[in-house]
Amino acid sequence: MSKLLVFQSDFGLSDGAVAAMYGVALSVEPTLKIYNLTHDIPPFDTFEASYRLFQAVPFWPKGTVFVTVVDPGVGSERRSIVVKTKRGQYIVTPDNGSISHVSRVIGIESVREISEEVGRRKNSENSYTFHGRDVYGYTGALLASGQISYEEIGSEIPVEEIVIMQGMYPEIGEDFIEGNIETLDVRFGSLWTNIGREAFEKMSFKAGDLVDVTITRGETTIYHSFVQYVNTFADVKIGEALIYANSMDYMALAINQGSFAKAYNIGTRDPWKIRFSKIS
Amino acid sequence: MSKLLVFQSDFGLSDGAVAAMYGVALSVEPTLKIYNLTHDIPPFDTFEASYRLFQAVPFWPKGTVFVTVVDPGVGSERRSIVVKTKRGQYIVTPDNGSISHVSRVIGIESVREISEEVGRRKNSENSYTFHGRDVYGYTGALLASGQISYEEIGSEIPVEEIVIMQGMYPEIGEDFIEGNIETLDVRFGSLWTNIGREAFEKMSFKAGDLVDVTITRGETTIYHSFVQYVNTFADVKIGEALIYANSMDYMALAINQGSFAKAYNIGTRDPWKIRFSKIS
Amino acid sequence: MSKLLVFQSDFGLSDGAVAAMYGVALSVEPTLKIYNLTHDIPPFDTFEASYRLFQAVPFWPKGTVFVTVVDPGVGSERRSIVVKTKRGQYIVTPDNGSISHVSRVIGIESVREISEEVGRRKNSENSYTFHGRDVYGYTGALLASGQISYEEIGSEIPVEEIVIMQGMYPEIGEDFIEGNIETLDVRFGSLWTNIGREAFEKMSFKAGDLVDVTITRGETTIYHSFVQYVNTFADVKIGEALIYANSMDYMALAINQGSFAKAYNIGTRDPWKIRFSKIS
Repeated sequence: MSKLLVFQSDFGLSDGAVAAMYGVALSVEPTLKIYNLTHDIPPFDTFEASYRLFQAVPFWPKGTVFVTVVDPGVGSERRSIVVKTKRGQYIVTPDNGSISHVSRVIGIESVREISEEVGRRKNSENSYTFHGRDVYGYTGALLASGQISYEEIGSEIPVEEIVIMQGMYPEIGEDFIEGNIETLDVRFGSLWTNIGREAFEKMSFKAGDLVDVTITRGETTIYHSFVQYVNTFADVKIGEALIYANSMDYMALAINQGSFAKAYNIGTRDPWKIRFSKIS
Repeated sequence: MSKLLVFQSDFGLSDGAVAAMYGVALSVEPTLKIYNLTHDIPPFDTFEASYRLFQAVPFWPKGTVFVTVVDPGVGSERRSIVVKTKRGQYIVTPDNGSISHVSRVIGIESVREISEEVGRRKNSENSYTFHGRDVYGYTGALLASGQISYEEIGSEIPVEEIVIMQGMYPEIGEDFIEGNIETLDVRFGSLWTNIGREAFEKMSFKAGDLVDVTITRGETTIYHSFVQYVNTFADVKIGEALIYANSMDYMALAINQGSFAKAYNIGTRDPWKIRFSKIS
Repeated sequence: MSKLLVFQSDFGLSDGAVAAMYGVALSVEPTLKIYNLTHDIPPFDTFEASYRLFQAVPFWPKGTVFVTVVDPGVGSERRSIVVKTKRGQYIVTPDNGSISHVSRVIGIESVREISEEVGRRKNSENSYTFHGRDVYGYTGALLASGQISYEEIGSEIPVEEIVIMQGMYPEIGEDFIEGNIETLDVRFGSLWTNIGREAFEKMSFKAGDLVDVTITRGETTIYHSFVQYVNTFADVKIGEALIYANSMDYMALAINQGSFAKAYNIGTRDPWKIRFSKIS
């Protein structure tokens, strides 16, 4: 049986680009089962590509083949690779950091470089700008359909050689833990950090505790308050702030039925930092 | 053979949330056939969730399993249920009114409450905020794949106990029928009412008749004119208003190749009312 | 085995309309494999419908059934047709020019008019406004599932009789080639023309050459410069303009990691023209 095939890109769904990738994959094998992760990654935003894989990959079966095409370097010398995760999933991607979060949360077992002989669609040699269709989608379809094995993709690359982004992990002090705001839960305005629940609870915070929260933009403190750590939104009043472990088991900051990000004008990534400290 | 599985939510398709639900469902059974109704329900808008089910459910086969996750009460005491329609379709949903329109148009045969023992994904006990993935999507996949039967979901609840929204039905007078503007046909700007064609024609209106139309916002009359009831847009001139039975067989008000809603600044739901009266 | 079924429309994905079409198709045959081309065609924009088919159709297998519903004439006298391409794919569409680009790039083998007896969903006679669900989607599902053959759809129409848009082909002079800007590669701001690479290279332009580029809006020259024809973005510096053959093998104008359209405020279609001339 074919493996599941999942596409992600920054192409949007308003033109025919994603459908062209689907057509190529289904020409390889018409019974393939293809799904979308998202195609709304902001153009060229490899951090977001990495984050969205992190939200989805852990929940898909062993053997699933992901194809992610956010590729500011298309046409340049960046490598094209297939990553095998420690849970036996595959990710077909340019080597540009898009697997950084999956590396953190699942781990990378091995990596292979896509050989153009194997992984380029026939008669597409004159096409330089749509590797999603002509290389990544095509390779993903070959792999998901079993027409080639993982070993046949190309030669192995040492895991340490592939690109991983900076700032994946929080800084842990004696009585604080400081990390990044990796993304907003856009529709609901919560801040999602790179601080895992396990690391947070090692500070001996437990549900019900008040936590000293500081948010800075570079040198400037933008928010400083005591906020309760609770299990879920309904544990605080409407309009009240809360700290909780989000659906990825990472710490988040929200306002019950409001938008924390809008309320305090908070952004994500550099130069924003969030620090949880014990109340002395 | 597995039943069809259809997802709806207010998550949008820009992050990994919908793909995480898909991954969970396909981990239950990789051969499941999964489709989207829409994921663009405005956040927490259970009325719109109900309306979009109404637009789609009647056209899907017996046995189809719908999962709808618009859930302002996540983490609170609201019940999680599976509704069986009178045509043998299933709807997995929080008990918050999301099945009001389906109840009007198809009818509810029976309801069961989801038992957490059966319907919660293993090892998701620490996750309080993503019931779409951990409870609703998972339960829907179990049911669609036949791994559990409808009866095994949990204990039965009397149909009268589940939440149905107010204002589902129009008021019928001797020479008028008054109802709500339930939604706009957004891209084309028509007003879609909760007045069914059958009820409308019982007033002995027939195609070709002029109808007295009044639209009010609370106490204020916003629009008052005579409009022709016709079969289709092309029966009137470009730019002219018309009354017609929409694709759900409910009465609608439009401008041929224009936007009625924009032309007269008309909104939907409370406090908007639309009244069709006979011309005396 | 069923053929693949692919939907395109101007309905958007925010309401239940597309899901209603899917439900109808899957009621015809629940094992059908259905995919989306796009549903974000601007309302009534048949040119864009035609262009998006052009981007996708060439990459799908023989036998694939496309259903495209961009239909400003719904309810009027326009014909409903099924087009068979020269590669054996089918396109179910109103006869309004939506197959113009496919006709240019692949060619039309034959056309049949949909007979209402065959191609209208049972009990939908009172529905005048949703032919996508009641006629096109239903007919597409019958054809893809093999419940009817192409010949059973209705009587043949001469290929010359169907609607094809004006301006499909560029004008070729002795030392220039002038064409239209058919679309923008929206997320990246490149101009995509109707000038094929083959015609362009017949002017004896080759990679590395400087080309004299003029863009006009009606009588006004908006842009005039010498631009290099290269294989791919990375062949020029960041911020520099380039001419390249896009992923459809048509000539395009871009700025590496910028937006040509925004930089020079360029639009598409009438009254915009682009001319490539030899540098004398």
